[in-house]
Amino acid sequence: MAHIDLGLDETQYPGITGLMRFRPETAAPLNALAEALLHAPHPSLTAGERELIAAYVSGLNECTFCCESHSAFAAEQLDGGMPLVRQVRQDPATAEVSAKLQALLHIAGAVQKTGRAVTPKLVEAARSEGATELEIHDTVLIAAAFCMYNRYVDGLGTQLPEDPTAFEQRARQIKANGYVG
Amino acid sequence: MAHIDLGLDETQYPGITGLMRFRPETAAPLNALAEALLHAPHPSLTAGERELIAAYVSGLNECTFCCESHSAFAAEQLDGGMPLVRQVRQDPATAEVSAKLQALLHIAGAVQKTGRAVTPKLVEAARSEGATELEIHDTVLIAAAFCMYNRYVDGLGTQLPEDPTAFEQRARQIKANGYVG
Repeated sequence: MAHIDLGLDETQYPGITGLMRFRPETAAPLNALAEALLHAPHPSLTAGERELIAAYVSGLNECTFCCESHSAFAAEQLDGGMPLVRQVRQDPATAEVSAKLQALLHIAGAVQKTGRAVTPKLVEAARSEGATELEIHDTVLIAAAFCMYNRYVDGLGTQLPEDPTAFEQRARQIKANGYVG
Repeated sequence: MAHIDLGLDETQYPGITGLMRFRPETAAPLNALAEALLHAPHPSLTAGERELIAAYVSGLNECTFCCESHSAFAAEQLDGGMPLVRQVRQDPATAEVSAKLQALLHIAGAVQKTGRAVTPKLVEAARSEGATELEIHDTVLIAAAFCMYNRYVDGLGTQLPEDPTAFEQRARQIKANGYVG
């Protein structure tokens, strides 16, 4: 049971989905932000790469619901699938992703601690691997946003889905329709 | 200078304002979320009380831009003004606010650390002081959201305004027009 009475069957609406039904006024901008960051067309980062950043930060924050769901969303949209997602969650520095994505994940890991942990040196390292200003911006904001979503989901004590295939099912919907479909 | 080239005069657009001009696609939901949480009509929490939670969390995250700005926004909308905001930032437990608001600030402080720090005991303490389910929900989400805004502003190395009265000027605009006016 969540920390508050959501007025619904939590087994039908696990994690953030119950919170969004409880408070549609905040659900709308929360979904719009996820859409803009993770699913909307992007000039250079794929949806899979952006979901990977979200999954990595959610793992660092030990938010099981967000980490499992965004890992599934990343796996659905990356050639490397779940094995690659697991590599990144274990250690971006040894994962089979580009040096640019490694450098962006390094920035995301700093953001997870505190914004002040992002140093000019970390940013320059990403830039020297070819990262654009927009990629650096979006990496910081994705990481920051998941420091919000993770705290929202766990701070209200929401539950995991009972069905272990729920995240894979949702991943196909996200790939097809995004967060505001 | 910010960590990335925002393509604008940062002295004119300090803190989050420059980031929002750089990336209007994410600015829209970020502003809509702030509006829903901090300025939209609320059945029981005043705008001043909600801004106080934002200022308190921003202080814990040591984000000067957000803490100074939302302290000014809170002060503009609270009878106790800036002296009361300073009391809360120093220690909610001894500040001259209601026992309910103290308990909500205690929850916000837990969220700032990690969502998993919000215990049933903390939630029950707020409820026993009269906090509603919606107030507990919104407190958790305001605190979580400022763990995002703070990391966004500091993670991209944005600057403070040169004009020390900028936050007071902005506070009057926020009170009158909110975040999407």
